[in-house]
Amino acid sequence: MSRGDVNLDFRRRDRLGFDEAILCGPKSAAQLVSILEQADDRDASLLLTRLESTQLEVLPEALRVRIDYDPVSRTGFYGDHVAPRGEPRVGVLTAGTSDATVGREVIRTLEYYGEPSLDVADVGVAGLWRLLDRVEELRKLAALVVVAGMDGALPSVVAGLVPGVVISVPTSVGYGVAAGGHAALHSALASCAPGVVVVNIDNGYGAACAVLRVLRCGATGAG
Amino acid sequence: MSRGDVNLDFRRRDRLGFDEAILCGPKSAAQLVSILEQADDRDASLLLTRLESTQLEVLPEALRVRIDYDPVSRTGFYGDHVAPRGEPRVGVLTAGTSDATVGREVIRTLEYYGEPSLDVADVGVAGLWRLLDRVEELRKLAALVVVAGMDGALPSVVAGLVPGVVISVPTSVGYGVAAGGHAALHSALASCAPGVVVVNIDNGYGAACAVLRVLRCGATGAG
Amino acid sequence: MSRGDVNLDFRRRDRLGFDEAILCGPKSAAQLVSILEQADDRDASLLLTRLESTQLEVLPEALRVRIDYDPVSRTGFYGDHVAPRGEPRVGVLTAGTSDATVGREVIRTLEYYGEPSLDVADVGVAGLWRLLDRVEELRKLAALVVVAGMDGALPSVVAGLVPGVVISVPTSVGYGVAAGGHAALHSALASCAPGVVVVNIDNGYGAACAVLRVLRCGATGAG
Amino acid sequence: MSRGDVNLDFRRRDRLGFDEAILCGPKSAAQLVSILEQADDRDASLLLTRLESTQLEVLPEALRVRIDYDPVSRTGFYGDHVAPRGEPRVGVLTAGTSDATVGREVIRTLEYYGEPSLDVADVGVAGLWRLLDRVEELRKLAALVVVAGMDGALPSVVAGLVPGVVISVPTSVGYGVAAGGHAALHSALASCAPGVVVVNIDNGYGAACAVLRVLRCGATGAG
Amino acid sequence: MSRGDVNLDFRRRDRLGFDEAILCGPKSAAQLVSILEQADDRDASLLLTRLESTQLEVLPEALRVRIDYDPVSRTGFYGDHVAPRGEPRVGVLTAGTSDATVGREVIRTLEYYGEPSLDVADVGVAGLWRLLDRVEELRKLAALVVVAGMDGALPSVVAGLVPGVVISVPTSVGYGVAAGGHAALHSALASCAPGVVVVNIDNGYGAACAVLRVLRCGATGAG
Amino acid sequence: MSRGDVNLDFRRRDRLGFDEAILCGPKSAAQLVSILEQADDRDASLLLTRLESTQLEVLPEALRVRIDYDPVSRTGFYGDHVAPRGEPRVGVLTAGTSDATVGREVIRTLEYYGEPSLDVADVGVAGLWRLLDRVEELRKLAALVVVAGMDGALPSVVAGLVPGVVISVPTSVGYGVAAGGHAALHSALASCAPGVVVVNIDNGYGAACAVLRVLRCGATGAG
Amino acid sequence: MSRGDVNLDFRRRDRLGFDEAILCGPKSAAQLVSILEQADDRDASLLLTRLESTQLEVLPEALRVRIDYDPVSRTGFYGDHVAPRGEPRVGVLTAGTSDATVGREVIRTLEYYGEPSLDVADVGVAGLWRLLDRVEELRKLAALVVVAGMDGALPSVVAGLVPGVVISVPTSVGYGVAAGGHAALHSALASCAPGVVVVNIDNGYGAACAVLRVLRCGATGAG
Amino acid sequence: MSRGDVNLDFRRRDRLGFDEAILCGPKSAAQLVSILEQADDRDASLLLTRLESTQLEVLPEALRVRIDYDPVSRTGFYGDHVAPRGEPRVGVLTAGTSDATVGREVIRTLEYYGEPSLDVADVGVAGLWRLLDRVEELRKLAALVVVAGMDGALPSVVAGLVPGVVISVPTSVGYGVAAGGHAALHSALASCAPGVVVVNIDNGYGAACAVLRVLRCGATGAG
Repeated sequence: MSRGDVNLDFRRRDRLGFDEAILCGPKSAAQLVSILEQADDRDASLLLTRLESTQLEVLPEALRVRIDYDPVSRTGFYGDHVAPRGEPRVGVLTAGTSDATVGREVIRTLEYYGEPSLDVADVGVAGLWRLLDRVEELRKLAALVVVAGMDGALPSVVAGLVPGVVISVPTSVGYGVAAGGHAALHSALASCAPGVVVVNIDNGYGAACAVLRVLRCGATGAG
Repeated sequence: MSRGDVNLDFRRRDRLGFDEAILCGPKSAAQLVSILEQADDRDASLLLTRLESTQLEVLPEALRVRIDYDPVSRTGFYGDHVAPRGEPRVGVLTAGTSDATVGREVIRTLEYYGEPSLDVADVGVAGLWRLLDRVEELRKLAALVVVAGMDGALPSVVAGLVPGVVISVPTSVGYGVAAGGHAALHSALASCAPGVVVVNIDNGYGAACAVLRVLRCGATGAG
Repeated sequence: MSRGDVNLDFRRRDRLGFDEAILCGPKSAAQLVSILEQADDRDASLLLTRLESTQLEVLPEALRVRIDYDPVSRTGFYGDHVAPRGEPRVGVLTAGTSDATVGREVIRTLEYYGEPSLDVADVGVAGLWRLLDRVEELRKLAALVVVAGMDGALPSVVAGLVPGVVISVPTSVGYGVAAGGHAALHSALASCAPGVVVVNIDNGYGAACAVLRVLRCGATGAG
Repeated sequence: MSRGDVNLDFRRRDRLGFDEAILCGPKSAAQLVSILEQADDRDASLLLTRLESTQLEVLPEALRVRIDYDPVSRTGFYGDHVAPRGEPRVGVLTAGTSDATVGREVIRTLEYYGEPSLDVADVGVAGLWRLLDRVEELRKLAALVVVAGMDGALPSVVAGLVPGVVISVPTSVGYGVAAGGHAALHSALASCAPGVVVVNIDNGYGAACAVLRVLRCGATGAG
Repeated sequence: MSRGDVNLDFRRRDRLGFDEAILCGPKSAAQLVSILEQADDRDASLLLTRLESTQLEVLPEALRVRIDYDPVSRTGFYGDHVAPRGEPRVGVLTAGTSDATVGREVIRTLEYYGEPSLDVADVGVAGLWRLLDRVEELRKLAALVVVAGMDGALPSVVAGLVPGVVISVPTSVGYGVAAGGHAALHSALASCAPGVVVVNIDNGYGAACAVLRVLRCGATGAG
Repeated sequence: MSRGDVNLDFRRRDRLGFDEAILCGPKSAAQLVSILEQADDRDASLLLTRLESTQLEVLPEALRVRIDYDPVSRTGFYGDHVAPRGEPRVGVLTAGTSDATVGREVIRTLEYYGEPSLDVADVGVAGLWRLLDRVEELRKLAALVVVAGMDGALPSVVAGLVPGVVISVPTSVGYGVAAGGHAALHSALASCAPGVVVVNIDNGYGAACAVLRVLRCGATGAG
Repeated sequence: MSRGDVNLDFRRRDRLGFDEAILCGPKSAAQLVSILEQADDRDASLLLTRLESTQLEVLPEALRVRIDYDPVSRTGFYGDHVAPRGEPRVGVLTAGTSDATVGREVIRTLEYYGEPSLDVADVGVAGLWRLLDRVEELRKLAALVVVAGMDGALPSVVAGLVPGVVISVPTSVGYGVAAGGHAALHSALASCAPGVVVVNIDNGYGAACAVLRVLRCGATGAG
Repeated sequence: MSRGDVNLDFRRRDRLGFDEAILCGPKSAAQLVSILEQADDRDASLLLTRLESTQLEVLPEALRVRIDYDPVSRTGFYGDHVAPRGEPRVGVLTAGTSDATVGREVIRTLEYYGEPSLDVADVGVAGLWRLLDRVEELRKLAALVVVAGMDGALPSVVAGLVPGVVISVPTSVGYGVAAGGHAALHSALASCAPGVVVVNIDNGYGAACAVLRVLRCGATGAG
């Protein structure tokens, strides 16, 4: 496959403030190499998502060693990126241990763009006190990303307690009617709390991009 | 349609402790008359569910006046029934005003069998304090019926707070992904809280029957 | 039905900055009267959504005349509300004429909270020039609400062109596979553009609440 | 992954009478080790569910040998637990040999909490006599857990024959329209027998917790 | 609409042994008149199904009086047909009173072709004794049509008790997960009893045609 | 697992004329051994379906050599069975080469019960002449089993051409909307040809049992 | 509603060769009037689809009389349009009488653009000879639009017989699994015949537009 | 398996202008060998689709070496085929790199029939300028095949910009609601642009056959 088969959107940062992120999972090694080389040609950095460790291993060493890889979230940073600094303006809540993979994708994507975040793990509604103990802290944040599979009850509860932006990421954790994450997705969309917004199942990357769009409006006063 | 077309299960009370309940909605006036007459022949009482007021109106007056009808729940009592007495052992929680129809069907079915209940309205999770204010009271009950549409988050929160039996009745209230009650149903089935049980969407009658099965086990020590 | 059957969340504005909104569609006249009277008791104002004109007509005149009703969006303002002022920070885009009902619910909800908005109608992707003509204007806004049924292609195109927050409201307009809005919902959730967020089908009210959460973060610098 | 990434709900037993159970399937070895160590720190015991033998094998030996593991149900007991005693008050019915895995999860969860149960295997409705032969015995029990995939006809038949609590666990056994267990789930929810309650597909653990909630009400007289 | 717009399959009886049946529900009065006139031209008789009484009323009187109409099944016989005679070789079982409409469509279709049938009403599995009382009678029949909505458990139970052909007709009676008849359909298709066959939801006509195909094989010895 | 865990329905042949068939796919080796030994104890023969060659290989040799195994259909005959004889009364049609596995399961099940069948392969409607060439032959048979995935058009076409019983077996062959066989299933259920009956996706065994029920009615004159 | 609320795509004919068609069903009378007046301002003609006769009746008479309305297809021509001429190059096949509404929408849309078509009614596969009788005629046409609900078998059969373009329009005619047209849609998409293309359920307008795109390529030699 | 088990449609080219293509994925090696040998017997050439490299490897060498195999599209040419020549009349657009497999199947199928095509990669709507840069070029083509997964917005945008035939091939690329390609399929079917036609998910072969049907009508003037 020649390099010409891949046609990256390098003008995206000017337009949207984002680099193109590369969803690696369904791509072949040849396609990934072509993409990284194009980035090098333009001195661009890239965020790699859903990069399986087995995919990483078969990349040429010269490319592989330049990837800052996190196995939990399966994300890689290629090229330079800004280090996070300042106080977190965003919290990332996960309902259970099994949601950690997606929660970490949110945190890593924010980190790639220099945005620190507060990690609030295991606050599922079955043990409500774990969440209630931290409400005051959460009420001060501009945005919360709520990562939850199964019944998807967490975003409704959170959005009834805090005034900030609440972005729900349903996860595919679960079995039976919860398998694939559709129960959690539908529950979040049908939330009885006002103003919950939702991204695709397991789409931690998308939730982080939405946070960045939100935070910009505060940073620039455009909002 | 001759009377022979209807074949009621009058042996049910001996076997299960329930009379046969008549789901009136899809039945014709002729079928309803035939059913009431059969009950008279055997001196039996009947619980009528989903009896629309328009159905009630076209019944012969002699039958109609003997029906104790509640328009909110669309239930009717035909013949004698035991008056509720004693302290409530079961609570009926509704998430929003629109769930009242189904919540009332639970209460009326319990009443038909002489069982008083505690009515706890409008305790949806978007205003969590309304529920938290009453937790101590709810923890003392043997069973809670949780009636909720939309996101269906309420049964998970309740079952994480109380030790009693928690029966979820999803309701068809809602629009978009919540239409028909499937989002609430799936959320309840996928509950992260241990031991939530579920009945069909809008099935207040079924939830009450389940409560009766539960309470018997306490009353008789069979359990 | 006694007034006690309705239990409004009057503490919501303190907690979240929103009044409780009343989804009128599934409620009876008795329930609506009870709700308006409770608001009067507390000198509170209310936003009424999905209030059919047939529901409005049967309210007691003393209550009815105090409702500022908009038939296109089926919204009513009960009691005082802040008049919108300043330059719009949010745009409301509709793909086709049939999406106007929902688009208007967004605009009216924002108006209830004093927030002006820019109305951008009929910019469906089948006539792309209508959208491209206005891109520069849209790039300056903090948030865009994109209201589209059918194929749901508009939010993806918009989010590839502007850096602000993009909130998609799928609509139930359409027939065949588009009936009910699920095709548009899934298309928006699966958007290939980074950071699109989504609310339930036809949920213009929810999208407006999300905008308010976003704008606050700019207004207060909390973000 | 540091231990801090897992945040168990050790207050659950006080609140609900249950320990937190650990759904092991989607968790990494590092997460499982962290969980077991936290339990040790608090001298707590744990019920492990869906623990694959391959997961068990990679645990450190010091932890592994302290797990009482049952390969059929894939459950493990970590730490002390009460031995079952007394006459069974609950029956566990399975429709076919392929439902044994889930049936066993019910029995083991009850056993962890000291509750003996009666195992009634292979009583699917296609050979009705196998069930009818045991009706008198089943009528004496406080609760029956009915584990059935495929057509899910068994809970309806059982609930028409016995007065006790009937909890249906649909199983994912089957192919075609039965694949994943949705046919059995829907059949149980739509049961024409009064008072059948249902848990998620394959959720033997949840059914057992529901039984424990039921039996408590008999034991304590709270009900 | 000219008569030419309708193009009936008058060669069907030669090929299949059936006349073309006319599904009247979705047809206009003009189309129905055209169809009846074409039948007259060829001296053919017709079976009319799903003929609403409102459709019947607007037909020209000359045509209307020649239709032998049954309001329960909404079927009409136009022209001559053979009177049923002999002992019934087929039984039509209905689970509940609400299934009577469909059960009657089976009986009337068989009657149109001269085939008598045994009507066995209200034998749903929640009151199993009603079915068990008649098993010996049912075991002697060549074919049973089992009409059941809700949980759809009846065909599985029946097919485990009798050696004849068992044809399941799921019905759309029910609410929640049973609405539309899909739960009953899937339960019948997933039956654990060997050799149950199924037709579309509410398709009493189709079930009767299947019975006729079966009985022919016995009558002619072709089988 | 002790033998007692399996509880076969050995009275089935008396009741229904079928032996219990064993769906092997989801069973463990221990369960299969227990089943075969129980059959030996009673001198019974068994039909094994969905027996993977990998399952066969791990059975004890003494049992394995007594299984007459066919790898295409994954069926095994254990113990004696009647050899087919006489002219075929049933045809088995497959639409494409990929449907052969299921078609063969039909043929083998019939063979187990001594019933010969006519194998008519690759007669999908895209090459209609292949079917039309054989119509006269097919019109003489008592029953046709039509095995087809993808669009599922074949049973409708066949049932419009022949007077015998037509049993459709949808197959899970296909991709996209055809994946899993639901498109073919729904097409068969919605057939515009009168009297098509349907079994579960890939259920060749069930179709054969239905044929046996049909043929009996011809053989015994019960019909 | 001011005229400004509607923003028609009058540049469409230059770009695509189509005028914008107006889907009238979901539009209010005010919106329709605004649209017709905008067309008048630009001296444009319009194709109106899904215009109910009740909508037509409430339009101002001055506008109404200028609409050439066809009640079967519910289409209207507003302003000038080219009269069809020449031999038909496209055939419109309908499977049953109930598909006529959609078939007529195809024919009327083609007529609006001056394209004559051949109307081939009632050629469903259950009476295959009706189709086979006309194959030679159909093989000469450039394109066939196949309108069929229920099992959707017709497009597969047609595409196996003719070399021209085959466009399938599934219809929502039917009940049970056929309700809404999804069975027919999936069957057409899964067609085993090569090169069948599909449009949305009931979308006769879209099919006609596709035909126009096809015919242009023959007319201009662009292809 | 004897050769007789496969019954190819060698008359297809005469009837439709296509050879039968062999969907290899679900076929066994024995079936593939039988098919290739039958082709040899008739001196026919074959297009092989979804031929996995693992399937290719186990074919006898004498057959394998005669297959012109492309691993990206998993297609093989067996026997002679016409070399493409002339200017491309068709464009193949892919939205993202992950759609390349399906796009290539379109190109290879066209190549097998001697039809050259223009490959336009990575023109997803999130970076709209990539598409707009090439609109003039695309407007000159007779047909465009648009291959896109995820949100499926590309066909709607394309069909609003060009007058030629637009054939959408949804792809199964994606996760969450996009998994399996249903979101993209429904979006394409619900397109607001006039005349988009659609084939099954991932069906690049079918799209190419549709193109060939279209181009013929231009080539022969039949259209």
